[in-house]
Amino acid sequence: MADIKVYLSEKDIPRKWYNIVPDFANKPKPPITPDGKPMTPDMLAPVFPMNLIEQEASQKRWIDIPEEIIEILYRWRPSPLRRACYLEKYLKTPARIYYKDESLSPPGSHKPNTAVAQAWYNKQFGIKKLTTETGAGQWGSALSFACNLVGLECKVYMVRISYDQKPLRKTMMGIWGGECVPSPSDQTVFGRKVLKDTPDTPGSLGIAISEAIEEAVSDKSGKTRYALGSVLNHVMLHQTIIGLEAKKQLKAAGEKTPDVIIGCAGGGSNFAGLSFPFVYEKINGANITIIPTEPTACPTLTKGPFAYDYGDTACMTPLLAMFTLGHGFVPPPIHAGGLRYHGMAPLVSHAVREGLLEPRAFDQIKCYKAALTWARTEGAICAPETSHAVACAIEEAEKAREEGKEKVILMNYSGHGLLDMGGYKKFLDGELIEYRLPASEVSKSLECLKGLPKINN
Amino acid sequence: MADIKVYLSEKDIPRKWYNIVPDFANKPKPPITPDGKPMTPDMLAPVFPMNLIEQEASQKRWIDIPEEIIEILYRWRPSPLRRACYLEKYLKTPARIYYKDESLSPPGSHKPNTAVAQAWYNKQFGIKKLTTETGAGQWGSALSFACNLVGLECKVYMVRISYDQKPLRKTMMGIWGGECVPSPSDQTVFGRKVLKDTPDTPGSLGIAISEAIEEAVSDKSGKTRYALGSVLNHVMLHQTIIGLEAKKQLKAAGEKTPDVIIGCAGGGSNFAGLSFPFVYEKINGANITIIPTEPTACPTLTKGPFAYDYGDTACMTPLLAMFTLGHGFVPPPIHAGGLRYHGMAPLVSHAVREGLLEPRAFDQIKCYKAALTWARTEGAICAPETSHAVACAIEEAEKAREEGKEKVILMNYSGHGLLDMGGYKKFLDGELIEYRLPASEVSKSLECLKGLPKINN
Repeated sequence: MADIKVYLSEKDIPRKWYNIVPDFANKPKPPITPDGKPMTPDMLAPVFPMNLIEQEASQKRWIDIPEEIIEILYRWRPSPLRRACYLEKYLKTPARIYYKDESLSPPGSHKPNTAVAQAWYNKQFGIKKLTTETGAGQWGSALSFACNLVGLECKVYMVRISYDQKPLRKTMMGIWGGECVPSPSDQTVFGRKVLKDTPDTPGSLGIAISEAIEEAVSDKSGKTRYALGSVLNHVMLHQTIIGLEAKKQLKAAGEKTPDVIIGCAGGGSNFAGLSFPFVYEKINGANITIIPTEPTACPTLTKGPFAYDYGDTACMTPLLAMFTLGHGFVPPPIHAGGLRYHGMAPLVSHAVREGLLEPRAFDQIKCYKAALTWARTEGAICAPETSHAVACAIEEAEKAREEGKEKVILMNYSGHGLLDMGGYKKFLDGELIEYRLPASEVSKSLECLKGLPKINN
Repeated sequence: MADIKVYLSEKDIPRKWYNIVPDFANKPKPPITPDGKPMTPDMLAPVFPMNLIEQEASQKRWIDIPEEIIEILYRWRPSPLRRACYLEKYLKTPARIYYKDESLSPPGSHKPNTAVAQAWYNKQFGIKKLTTETGAGQWGSALSFACNLVGLECKVYMVRISYDQKPLRKTMMGIWGGECVPSPSDQTVFGRKVLKDTPDTPGSLGIAISEAIEEAVSDKSGKTRYALGSVLNHVMLHQTIIGLEAKKQLKAAGEKTPDVIIGCAGGGSNFAGLSFPFVYEKINGANITIIPTEPTACPTLTKGPFAYDYGDTACMTPLLAMFTLGHGFVPPPIHAGGLRYHGMAPLVSHAVREGLLEPRAFDQIKCYKAALTWARTEGAICAPETSHAVACAIEEAEKAREEGKEKVILMNYSGHGLLDMGGYKKFLDGELIEYRLPASEVSKSLECLKGLPKINN
């Protein structure tokens, strides 16, 4: 039998990122301002460096990966492609399940793929410091890691309740030199206002984003910018290295184009990273079922409308054309913190609209069951987010068994769960709650879209 | 430049373990009973299965690794050999530093190499359940993982204070189906006695070992045995797969025999696993400096005498000929829980006596500084135990720079620190304490050796 682990030599690492934008039959809707006008690059200049703003708007299919970024990525890339043969055997499935192991980066997920690129471009642009927000802590850890390697300061506003519940995430960021403060903080005008009005607030991603952007734009020296870990086009772009590597590795393993591709989708970046190079093949005629998986508790793609909405709760971002549950949506407290985002990357949303993707929702109990099956067969403990991909892979493998059909499944193993064991504890103790969002709550949450510009078709 | 990561194809995984015993010029002292008589295999039969007892006493140089064990190990083996080129660059050293990455096993350390083998041999012998103790939780996690894959029940007695401080270790074991109870427990005669006498005791490894052995030997069905994660000969044997892989990988990287080999040593198993195949070369004339590193807080090899002593605090084990601080030794509360053992594997101890090893002690502040340098150059966060190897590798690389001499350093990266971030927190907060054991405390602790049989030379 062939090796379970398919490695790629470092010299075969992809040298270009894949930008899906020029390959869509219909063009994605551009971001706009609240008065319905298209955003211009200069409007974003106080927040992001111009080289990343250019990537955000690029129409080029291939964009060179700078050699210095590749030198940093070699710490864990190319990541292994692995065959889940122990799971296959357990499921008695004729399907061959492959997974791209993104859990091996030092921060433990796919996030550093873009964190390193963003830090590097900011450094090139003369920036000295990056600010960002973090919820569960994955993105804040990844950006701290990246800033340390590139030589930037890093300031992370962490949602207070997570900051208090997971004090070791702050330690992880600190190991890489990142400064992590609970949000709301007394370090910004907005944070002080929130603290004054509601001293006991648990905080929110919306507040943390506002604080991080405020710090970036109010630095008079102009040497501070803000970084976002998902949603935006340039983030999807940087993550395509995952799928580009996977293509080479599948070929090395003697496989053709996979039949099914699966990734969990919160903001959309790990899903897009693996799938977009294969969406390209689908656009060009390949027969692939491509499935972004999401929680039934936050069913953006399966229950939300496609609409213009803000990327953040505080309405500071441009309006993005995306599937959304409304920027005011407060998701139930499921453990997959990275999948609790109200919106979805505009490029992933557009691909759904184009009929290229088939989103599917899973509830968290089914996901933890899948994660347990995974740990007891493959061995590793996956992140709660990743369990949404595992649940779908098992579902597809079982379908293949019932149909008696060979099938190649490719999944993104986006991260490990070693720092998020609290959900497993609840699951093992039988205390986990299943959430399915009722339609009435979705309608209520969508009321915040009233008065915003509509999408013209 | 060659790849930073040197992978070995699965078909090139070693097919035999290396047993160092027949290669020593002088034979190691056998384990004895308290009245000075040699232990016989049948005395150990209630505790271990006979196939492992045979390995414990084996004089054969090479022992076949059963194919079924190899099939399990493929989940993470062969482990990568990595070049620490980012650290080298930072240190401006002419040394080439390689490290064997044992942190990639699902439980996160080298421990599963022997856990899987022990579980498999017990299963072969008809055993249904393994019991063990765990301090920090690494070994309990590894044995739970292994028992799940082989199909055995697993019961772990975890020192109560660690159980309370690290509730997620119990969760980790539970994910793999292991049962973890705080020790002292009410499930054994000995545990109930301790609880009655000292209800508020924090517990100790000694108590936990006693409980685990009691449960194993008192199972009337004879289907329960006990497993130990270090110290014993068969454990060292199973770990030699690390060094045997490293040899092949160094060759693939174009390197000859390394000049310096480093591993941290608590009970001795990760150190022996990497180094023994190279100690063989040293016995046969190679010029290698082989360094087991230990904490100044528990300086077994650097301050302890070579003597017969018990392996556990409760004096239930045979007497082992080893370097020891005395079985009653209570180590200061350093964060490297795996290096707080009072003794040292008899085979490692014997190799020191034979002049083959050069032990070195490091204090924990120096080790955390080294770990921080590692995280900020190589990227990953190492276990507190592993930081004792990292500190030594940095010391040797700096020496090479001062001497202007090329040198190949090989280190065992025994585990990650993602579940042990508390020590990093204290270090970053400036609250870490440095411990150097005064000679007077060593003398006091060694009083418990009085009355035990002496080693005749």
